[in-house]
Amino acid sequence: MSTIGVDVGGTKCLGVVLDDAGDVAAEHRVPTPQSRSGPALVDAVAEVARELQAGRSDLVGVGVPGIVDRDGVLRFAPNIPGVTELALQAELARRLGVDVRIDNDATCAAWAEQRFGAGSGRQHMILVTLGTGIGGGIVIDGRLVRGAHGFAGEIGHMVVDAVGGLPCPCGQRGCWERYASGSGLGRLAREAAHAQQIPHVVDLAGGDAEAVRGEHVTQAAAEGDPDAQAVMDRFGWWVALGLANLANAFDTECFVLGGGLVEAGSILLDPVRAAFLDLVEAAEHRPPVEIVAATLGERAGAIGAALLAATPER
Amino acid sequence: MSTIGVDVGGTKCLGVVLDDAGDVAAEHRVPTPQSRSGPALVDAVAEVARELQAGRSDLVGVGVPGIVDRDGVLRFAPNIPGVTELALQAELARRLGVDVRIDNDATCAAWAEQRFGAGSGRQHMILVTLGTGIGGGIVIDGRLVRGAHGFAGEIGHMVVDAVGGLPCPCGQRGCWERYASGSGLGRLAREAAHAQQIPHVVDLAGGDAEAVRGEHVTQAAAEGDPDAQAVMDRFGWWVALGLANLANAFDTECFVLGGGLVEAGSILLDPVRAAFLDLVEAAEHRPPVEIVAATLGERAGAIGAALLAATPER
Repeated sequence: MSTIGVDVGGTKCLGVVLDDAGDVAAEHRVPTPQSRSGPALVDAVAEVARELQAGRSDLVGVGVPGIVDRDGVLRFAPNIPGVTELALQAELARRLGVDVRIDNDATCAAWAEQRFGAGSGRQHMILVTLGTGIGGGIVIDGRLVRGAHGFAGEIGHMVVDAVGGLPCPCGQRGCWERYASGSGLGRLAREAAHAQQIPHVVDLAGGDAEAVRGEHVTQAAAEGDPDAQAVMDRFGWWVALGLANLANAFDTECFVLGGGLVEAGSILLDPVRAAFLDLVEAAEHRPPVEIVAATLGERAGAIGAALLAATPER
Repeated sequence: MSTIGVDVGGTKCLGVVLDDAGDVAAEHRVPTPQSRSGPALVDAVAEVARELQAGRSDLVGVGVPGIVDRDGVLRFAPNIPGVTELALQAELARRLGVDVRIDNDATCAAWAEQRFGAGSGRQHMILVTLGTGIGGGIVIDGRLVRGAHGFAGEIGHMVVDAVGGLPCPCGQRGCWERYASGSGLGRLAREAAHAQQIPHVVDLAGGDAEAVRGEHVTQAAAEGDPDAQAVMDRFGWWVALGLANLANAFDTECFVLGGGLVEAGSILLDPVRAAFLDLVEAAEHRPPVEIVAATLGERAGAIGAALLAATPER
């Protein structure tokens, strides 16, 4: 029996039909509602699932960007401020007439990458998605780590610069995602632009320092611009700082980096790998830790949601 | 069959005989060799084990303060700089003529507290020992987390203050244990003493600001000295900062705090609990996380080492 997976993202709700072989048999997407209210979110997910269901009584898995309890209630979503305590599982099950399973989006993506992607077969793997924020999905001894209440993997709000750190919408200072997310790269780049350190990057952004985005930096770095590469080195240090903290705690064998930024390939990965060796405890006394790019792209969350709906014991 | 457990600490090697009921049937201790060389360390552990073995062919478990691989090699011990790549398991097994199992000391203590102590029966628990440094032992879904190579739980070197943080002997800046360990409390207290913020505490230390130790602060705070309580509030914030990072990542249900500092009881625990609620992500949307004191005291590591030698599959 095929299974449907839907990933709720910041801009789109992307659904897939996963067949028994693990292949994507169909796909459908709708924009994530701008209102970001609970009912509008339920409508959007239900629309995607119904389109893919096509009259069959499939299982439906949904990945959402927030903390989800084991009853499928979306308790809190840092980037969807209007939605708290949303009984997504119960509401979708009622509307769709099928079993529904809700999970954190990064947890879903981690499972997909561990089964079919860059972490294939790894018993110890952490997926880190570098997007607007940072999400995490953790595999230990071949099993997903959900924690006591299903909330594990909220690694973006790990405080790494407590005293003088940047304020975070979550209320803390110095959260890792202020520095090491896609938004963090943009901020770092605009600082460098205003300090007139990256003239070529500013040219790429049309001459306006404030218009500089992460992709301008990665493009210039790929062209060999040493100023842009220096920004990537600084950014890579921040990414590696959090990875080192996680490696010290979890002793993972593999980090899979996801999110749009990883399309930059070695422009991103090389500085991260170099800094990681400086930052992890006792690097010379431990086996190397792989740091690789995710391979399933934007479908990872939806594929993982479908996989987890089909095998909920994971 | 009874089992022997030996815990290698900074000042002493403490061994116990654990009977089938999990009770300590005998105990022996020797000073940890000042030379801290590999051979001297092996001698000390062998002496404790032999004294307790009393001619029986018992299993022997050993807890050591460092990262240990799955072959029982002590790869690196941050606080025993002279010892690296020490084949402790093979060497002790040869000398004692019995099966020997080596584990990280905090991992051992965590398992003891989960079986018989403050975390009894908790499926998700993290032991945090606040000593000279900070050690960690992690239980997820009722199982010890060892990681890919047996090194999991090195939480003391989680960087929490990356930019302006204090230098750490490990080579980084801003490691959590610079702030939230017993040594961290002493440093915080001496800063306050030099700033003339804690006159009563300085009196307890004989009038010398530089002689102030953590125990002077906890004593004064217990007596109701508001200046000392203010230091404990600041210290509790640093402890809670790391606990919140760990709670975000692991979604644990229970932190067990160990080390000599926890004898201060609510003088320590109350500020930590208060700050934790401010620091953990979405506190109002998650079930409460327990923060309690360890109950097995200085024997926890030895008891856990014995338990793990008897049931190595853990």
